[in-house]
Amino acid sequence: MKMPRVIAIATLSIASIVATALPVRAADDALPVPYQSSFRRWKHVKSMVIQKGHSLFEAFGGIHHVYVNDIGAKALRAKEELPTGTVLAFDLLEANASGGALTEGKRKFVAFMIRDPEKYADTEGWGWQAYKGGNPKKPVLKTAADQKACATCHKEVGAKQFVFSEWRR
Amino acid sequence: MKMPRVIAIATLSIASIVATALPVRAADDALPVPYQSSFRRWKHVKSMVIQKGHSLFEAFGGIHHVYVNDIGAKALRAKEELPTGTVLAFDLLEANASGGALTEGKRKFVAFMIRDPEKYADTEGWGWQAYKGGNPKKPVLKTAADQKACATCHKEVGAKQFVFSEWRR
Repeated sequence: MKMPRVIAIATLSIASIVATALPVRAADDALPVPYQSSFRRWKHVKSMVIQKGHSLFEAFGGIHHVYVNDIGAKALRAKEELPTGTVLAFDLLEANASGGALTEGKRKFVAFMIRDPEKYADTEGWGWQAYKGGNPKKPVLKTAADQKACATCHKEVGAKQFVFSEWRR
Repeated sequence: MKMPRVIAIATLSIASIVATALPVRAADDALPVPYQSSFRRWKHVKSMVIQKGHSLFEAFGGIHHVYVNDIGAKALRAKEELPTGTVLAFDLLEANASGGALTEGKRKFVAFMIRDPEKYADTEGWGWQAYKGGNPKKPVLKTAADQKACATCHKEVGAKQFVFSEWRR
C-alpha cells in the first residue's frame, strides 16, 4: 500500500500518540506494527540465556523471553497451523551476573514476527521487525534484505512454520 | 472448614479429574488451590537464574519465572493494593548449561501465593503451597509451620505487600 507523503506522516504521528492504547499499522506498510505497548501481557512461551561462547552471542547474547499473542497462543500450544495475525515477540534483555545470580537488565531489543502469508509472501509468510531498546522509533531492520535475513535463518525450522520456540509445558 | 472424610475424599477426587478445566478448592481448606493447569497462561512478571554460589541455591537453584493471575496483574503493574484472589506463581525449572547457553529443563516445583487477608490472617494475608514437579498430588508444604516459613521470609518485603517481584517493563 502506497500513501501520499502527508497522510503517511500524519498516520505515523497518530500511531506514536495512540501506541499505548492500540496496535496501529505503521506508515511504512512493509514494516510490522509496533506491539511494544502490549506484548508484555501476552502468553509467555519460553526463555533462554545465551552467553559468551555461544555462536549467537554477538547477535542475541543475554536473557530472552518469547511471547505469543492471543491469536496464536492456542495453535502454538497445540502445534496447529498458526493463523494470520499471530505475532511472536522475542524480548532480549541484558543478563546481569552478580552474587551467583543472573538478573534481567536493560532491554537490548524486542523483535516481532507477524503471520500473514499473503502480505509477507516474500519472507515465508512472516513479517519481521526489531526495535532497539524496545523503542518504536528505533526499528533495526531497514531494508527488505534485512527482513529476508530473518526469514533465511528461520528456514531452518521451516517444518515448524518457521518458529523456533515451542510452548514450554 | 471441616468436611466429613467421605466428602473430603470425593472432593479431592473430583478436583483431580477437573483440574485441567477449573481451579478447584483442595479438600484441605488450609492449602491453596492448585493452579497447575492455568498458571502458564498468566502474565509473566519477571525471571531470574539462581546459580551455585548464591545463598538460595539449595532451595531455589535454577531458572525461575514469576507469573500473576489476571485478578492481580493490573495492581501489580501499578503498584496498587493487590486484591483478594490475587495469585502469584513461582515456576522453578532446572537450568541446563550447554554450548554457552542456559536452557529450561525439568520443573523442580511450582509454588503459589494466594491473597486472602481474612482466610490467611496467620500468614500475612497470603496462603502458600508448592508442588514438586508441578504435580498437584505432591504438595511440598505439609504443616502450618511450613507455611509460616514462607511468610517469615517474605516479611523482608512486607512494605511491598510481601511480594518480592516487581513487574518488569
